Amino acid sequence: MRRIKFTLAYDGTEFFGWQVQPNLPTVQGTLEAALSEIEAAPVHVTASGRTDAGVHALAQVAAFDLNNPIPLPNLRKAVNKLLPPAIRILKVEDADPEFHPIRHARSKIYEYRIYREEILSPFDHRYVHHHPYPLDVDTMMDLAPLIEGEHDFRAFAASDEKYEAGEPLVRYVYTSELREDDDRLVYRVCGTGFLKHMVRNLVGTLLEIGKGNLHEEGLKKLLRPAPETPFGSAGPTAPPQGLFLVSVQY
Amino acid sequence: MRRIKFTLAYDGTEFFGWQVQPNLPTVQGTLEAALSEIEAAPVHVTASGRTDAGVHALAQVAAFDLNNPIPLPNLRKAVNKLLPPAIRILKVEDADPEFHPIRHARSKIYEYRIYREEILSPFDHRYVHHHPYPLDVDTMMDLAPLIEGEHDFRAFAASDEKYEAGEPLVRYVYTSELREDDDRLVYRVCGTGFLKHMVRNLVGTLLEIGKGNLHEEGLKKLLRPAPETPFGSAGPTAPPQGLFLVSVQY
Repeated sequence: MRRIKFTLAYDGTEFFGWQVQPNLPTVQGTLEAALSEIEAAPVHVTASGRTDAGVHALAQVAAFDLNNPIPLPNLRKAVNKLLPPAIRILKVEDADPEFHPIRHARSKIYEYRIYREEILSPFDHRYVHHHPYPLDVDTMMDLAPLIEGEHDFRAFAASDEKYEAGEPLVRYVYTSELREDDDRLVYRVCGTGFLKHMVRNLVGTLLEIGKGNLHEEGLKKLLRPAPETPFGSAGPTAPPQGLFLVSVQY
Repeated sequence: MRRIKFTLAYDGTEFFGWQVQPNLPTVQGTLEAALSEIEAAPVHVTASGRTDAGVHALAQVAAFDLNNPIPLPNLRKAVNKLLPPAIRILKVEDADPEFHPIRHARSKIYEYRIYREEILSPFDHRYVHHHPYPLDVDTMMDLAPLIEGEHDFRAFAASDEKYEAGEPLVRYVYTSELREDDDRLVYRVCGTGFLKHMVRNLVGTLLEIGKGNLHEEGLKKLLRPAPETPFGSAGPTAPPQGLFLVSVQY
């Protein structure tokens, strides 16, 4: 038995997220089906984190155990041949038998793309959030770095998620930056880990700031929540198609 | 009654081409449904030419008659609201009552994109032809301009198309260029008009040259066909998803 690390890209449009769901196309399910065909036995794949339905990955990391002694380059080719074109294995490596893509991740980078012009290209609509309305972009750019540092992010957690008492909701965000790139806004965030919906809720919150519905003090308050602050009280959750998992650092 | 000119972009992936077909999603059918809703009566739309299933347009031109006195900017917004995001109206103009998008077109530009690296990005697979095999690109680039000028393009016509006796198969190609653009090959052709499948057959023929299956003399022969040369004897027809109608000149 050997442990293998995959780096893969996917277009999330046609998948119901990463995690296996019965009778629905998911990235994990599609990948496991391909690997199980090669292994001629069930293969279980773990990723650095679950991405939601419609969310994309430029370089997700996943790991699994395999008995089949197929050389790594051949494995990459064989899996890519079995996968639909919306998922591509970019890199295949031998990993330590103990390698765990979630627990060993030091940090992750996500990017969120917002398109601001009136007419959205038919070639972009799967990959940006279309927001052709006025925004105070300067204030959004000024306040985005307030998210950096160690915070209890319960206000940015998914409101429908069940959290156990005492479950750590503190995360460390290394960088949080919004920049203008031609006709789009790009938000990039790097942190130790992210709660479910956290990046989309951060973007939704920045959009509220851009619309003038939330100000510096309001954002600071969301980042210093009281223990009774409800999960997901920030937001709203920005739509999934603008979100890309850019990379995972180990 | 007034005549209106639309400039529109579409992602051809999910359409069975431009032309209306019963019970299949087509660009023309989708556009006519939206306009008919606004007009509250059937509207017939003519384009500068039919694009095949899977072929894209960056700036197709279409025209139609409308009784509804809606101002042009409102018409654009209303139609874009009714259309799926895979079709976008970019520009709306008043046109001469006699304006005919096919007959009045002076020239058209098409582009064909070929991706040559081994791993095709999940975000590109709808928009390029993936050809990760050796090609003699220099010879392809050298010979592409031989296509320029006036030729009887019967060898590059669709083999399944019915042509009437004496139907003109002569077209004038102004420019025919192949260039390398990073990790892809881009073929761009500008001409007075194109037969069905002609651009894809030109690309298929250039790929045969790149593979060493066809040489300069063979290409010249295809461009100076005998009257008995079968339709579509050049080629094969390159797949549709690499092809973009770039623009139409009037």
